[in-house]
Amino acid sequence: MHIPSGDIDLVALGEALIDFISVEPADSLFDARVFQKHQGGSPANLCVNLAKLGGRAALIGKTGVGAFGAFIAVELRRAGVITDYIVQDPRVRTSVIFVTKTAGTPDFEAFRDGDFRLRPDEIDADVIRSARVVHASMWPVSREPSRSAVTRAFDIAHEAGRIVSFDPNYSRRIWPNHAEAREVLPRLLRKVTIVKPSLDDAHRFFADDVSPEDYIARFHEFGPEVVVFTMGREGILLSEAGQITAIPAQQVTVVDATGAGDAFWAGFLAALLDGHPLELCARFAREVVAMKLKRTGPLPSGLNRAAIYARLAENEQ
Amino acid sequence: MHIPSGDIDLVALGEALIDFISVEPADSLFDARVFQKHQGGSPANLCVNLAKLGGRAALIGKTGVGAFGAFIAVELRRAGVITDYIVQDPRVRTSVIFVTKTAGTPDFEAFRDGDFRLRPDEIDADVIRSARVVHASMWPVSREPSRSAVTRAFDIAHEAGRIVSFDPNYSRRIWPNHAEAREVLPRLLRKVTIVKPSLDDAHRFFADDVSPEDYIARFHEFGPEVVVFTMGREGILLSEAGQITAIPAQQVTVVDATGAGDAFWAGFLAALLDGHPLELCARFAREVVAMKLKRTGPLPSGLNRAAIYARLAENEQ
Repeated sequence: MHIPSGDIDLVALGEALIDFISVEPADSLFDARVFQKHQGGSPANLCVNLAKLGGRAALIGKTGVGAFGAFIAVELRRAGVITDYIVQDPRVRTSVIFVTKTAGTPDFEAFRDGDFRLRPDEIDADVIRSARVVHASMWPVSREPSRSAVTRAFDIAHEAGRIVSFDPNYSRRIWPNHAEAREVLPRLLRKVTIVKPSLDDAHRFFADDVSPEDYIARFHEFGPEVVVFTMGREGILLSEAGQITAIPAQQVTVVDATGAGDAFWAGFLAALLDGHPLELCARFAREVVAMKLKRTGPLPSGLNRAAIYARLAENEQ
Repeated sequence: MHIPSGDIDLVALGEALIDFISVEPADSLFDARVFQKHQGGSPANLCVNLAKLGGRAALIGKTGVGAFGAFIAVELRRAGVITDYIVQDPRVRTSVIFVTKTAGTPDFEAFRDGDFRLRPDEIDADVIRSARVVHASMWPVSREPSRSAVTRAFDIAHEAGRIVSFDPNYSRRIWPNHAEAREVLPRLLRKVTIVKPSLDDAHRFFADDVSPEDYIARFHEFGPEVVVFTMGREGILLSEAGQITAIPAQQVTVVDATGAGDAFWAGFLAALLDGHPLELCARFAREVVAMKLKRTGPLPSGLNRAAIYARLAENEQ
């Protein structure tokens, strides 16, 4: 894969929102009583994680102008994320999502407004062209006009030879019109360089149960030259034009799995932008995700990439 | 005023929602971090308060089917409110509102969805006709289709000789199109028997500063035969066809003012339905609101109307 140069390492498009996470563990939002406010959203957290790894990351998204929009901007800036391209629009509400804290599958309820109202004309083409990686996930693609905004950004990025990264984290609750999703995703993936489905994503999106290799083949057919297929405890399959390498999962005692996916992808992209081969990127990402899994809350700040590479080299011996 | 008989004392139309109230005091939602989930909404709380005073109260409104909708229904039933006419619609989200706990003016942010999606055809005409009082406030009137739903309910109630009660609690943040509000309210008030503006409501709605008597005259011109004009520490003005009686406020050390308006109106309607003259209704309401102001949280359950009347009679001597 060609690694372009550019002023910004990562431009992520999509939801900057408020996560209200239950303070007590609860399986259902019915039982959860007290919730704490957190800056959230997968692309926002990807930016935060890349910034913690020393990268320059910018978010393109839309929030309201009130207290919640201001909170998101302040938190992202505090984490070192470039917030100049977040549109604060007085006509929209900042999107919020309620999530239960649980060891099982979290119950959630999303109140979406601002996040999907990002318009194509609000995408700054110069920023897209100055980014080494342009990334999005299913949320902005699930609704208009943000779907068209992502499509435009991907077109510009593809044309300019940027790495285009996509997380196909399909969920019926975010995108109930499954037929539409199955029609939109392949079209979008034509412009994508690297796609990161999980086994669960693939099950949900294709609504069947075939082998990981078959799912990987399907994603390649849509366009991406690289598929990073994650399977939790079963490890990772890296596929470059169909050449598959298996990376086993690390043995980690999981304290808190929230945000593991975004930590993984930040690690992967950081190593990719450092010019490393995909296998080392996956091993680097696995180290980063382990740091996340071992602690409650997000990744710590000020992660030292060189130290992580050194640890990886040691483990090799 | 003619007091009709009926199977249900009060049918209130409007928002059944979730209040997320900050656990720590905060002037802004920016600073508030932790929020607790409460059943909320002014008409829902009016029903709860009337049920606590021994009345039969039903809410007509709309929520989603998820955990938040279920929570509202369970909490209202637990309080003794008839929930048979709440529409749980899988296509909508339960409305939520974030509020800061503060001694000043609370900061709030409303995420409305289900509450204003109540349609005219979802109003059960028989329930309206069986109600002694049919009540609504500005929230459902601020948006369609719930505006048409309230209009239809008021038409049916008026025709059937029910008492029609309205709380003109105008807020620009709930109804930004002020010109539309000024056009809609007079039309609606034609069918209203008794209206309960506060001095703040009148300032916000008319956007001027005239005497309470002038505001009362304006409300009468719109249609209602009774205006109950509340002025906080300045007391209450009762006006029956322009005949004004002043009721001083009670001296109370305020511990928590949240929900005082709904407690007042529940007390007023309870006494009205007991057949008492307006002045006694206002004195009764003042007793109920004092019980609310002296404690944190909602009114206690199992209030004894006879005991409150006895206390009022004692004070008279």
